[in-house]
Amino acid sequence: MSAAIDFYCDFASPYAYFAAPRLSELARRHGRALRWRPILLWTVLQAQGIATPLASKARSDYLINDMARSARFYGMPYRFPSHFPTSTHLAARGYYWVEQTAPDRAAAYGMAMFEAYFVHDINPRDPEAVADAAAKAGINDRAGLLAAMQDDRWKAALKAAGDAATSAGVCGSPFTMIDGEGFFGADRLPQIERWLAENGF
Amino acid sequence: MSAAIDFYCDFASPYAYFAAPRLSELARRHGRALRWRPILLWTVLQAQGIATPLASKARSDYLINDMARSARFYGMPYRFPSHFPTSTHLAARGYYWVEQTAPDRAAAYGMAMFEAYFVHDINPRDPEAVADAAAKAGINDRAGLLAAMQDDRWKAALKAAGDAATSAGVCGSPFTMIDGEGFFGADRLPQIERWLAENGF
Repeated sequence: MSAAIDFYCDFASPYAYFAAPRLSELARRHGRALRWRPILLWTVLQAQGIATPLASKARSDYLINDMARSARFYGMPYRFPSHFPTSTHLAARGYYWVEQTAPDRAAAYGMAMFEAYFVHDINPRDPEAVADAAAKAGINDRAGLLAAMQDDRWKAALKAAGDAATSAGVCGSPFTMIDGEGFFGADRLPQIERWLAENGF
Repeated sequence: MSAAIDFYCDFASPYAYFAAPRLSELARRHGRALRWRPILLWTVLQAQGIATPLASKARSDYLINDMARSARFYGMPYRFPSHFPTSTHLAARGYYWVEQTAPDRAAAYGMAMFEAYFVHDINPRDPEAVADAAAKAGINDRAGLLAAMQDDRWKAALKAAGDAATSAGVCGSPFTMIDGEGFFGADRLPQIERWLAENGF
C-alpha cells in the first residue's frame, strides 16, 4: 500500500468540511490511508507570515458568499456559524486522543466536528457541545474525551501537528499532502484525483 | 442576449491565463459576451487591504509549484516568467485602446498578452515586446499602439477599470462577475459553468 495522505485541516474551515468526504472517497478508491491532521490554522498562518483572509472586508465578504455557494455546489448542508471565527483547540485535542484510543472512529469523529460546527451550529469553545457531537460518532467515553481536551499530552500533540504543518509548507486549510506534493483548497480535488490516478502528472 | 460577463484579470496572473480560454468558451456556449477588464492587480489588492500572496515564503513557494502543476493539469504551455512579478500597465493600457479601435481583436489581443508572458517570456515593461506580441493578434497599427501605451486617455481607462474592480469587490485575479455574482480563481470554472447553465444555483 502506498503512503498515507495527510489531510491538514482546521475544524472551523468550511473548505476543509467540503473536501473531507470527497477526499476520503478518493483515498479509499486509490488504496491510500487518509491521515487527518487537525491544526489551528491561525497558528500556522502566523508562523508562515500569512495574514488571515478575513482581515480585508472585500475578501471576507467574498469568502462568506463563496462558502455558501460552494456548499450548494457540493450539495452539502451548511449554515454560516454563529461563532465565527472561533478556535477549535478542544475538538482538535480530542481528535488526537480519539486517534490514539479509538483509531477506527477517528475519521467519523472528524466529520462529526465539521457537521457540529457547519450544520448544528455548536460553539466549539464549549467542551460539552464538542462531547455531544463526538457521541454522534460513537465516542462514548465522554469523561475520557473531556479530560483529553485539557490534557497536556493532547495539547502537545496538537502543537506538534501545527509545527509539522508549518514545516511541510501548509499555507491554508484544507491542505493535502500526497507523497510530498501539497494541494491547497477544496478546489484542488480534481488535481488530487488525477495525481492519485497517475502517480503525479 | 443576457448581460456581458466581466473578466477582471491582470496579464501577469497565471490563473487568469489558465481561465481565459475556458471562460471564453463557456461564455460563447451560453450566449454571453465576455468583457475583458485588464487591471493592475496590486493596485486593487492595495485598495482592498489585501497583502500580496507572494509576501509569505510558504505561500509563494506553494503558488510557484501550483502554477506549473495547474498548467500541466489544464494542458497549457507555460514557463515561469523571467520577469516575475512585473507590472503589466503597458499591455493593459494597450488593451483599452484595442477595445476602442479594433474591438473584434480585443480578446485575441488579451490571449496574446498572456502567451507573450507565460510562453514566450517577454518583459512586459518593454513596449516593443508588447507591440510584437500584439502583432501576432493582428494589431498592425504598431505606432498607434505604442502611442496608446503612453497616452493619458488609456492611463485613465486602466485607472477606471481598477476603480470599478475595487467597487465590484474584486479580491484577486482572475475575478469573474456574472449578473453581480463574483467568482475568484480559475478553480471556480465548474461553478461558473453551472451558474450559466442554471442562471444561478
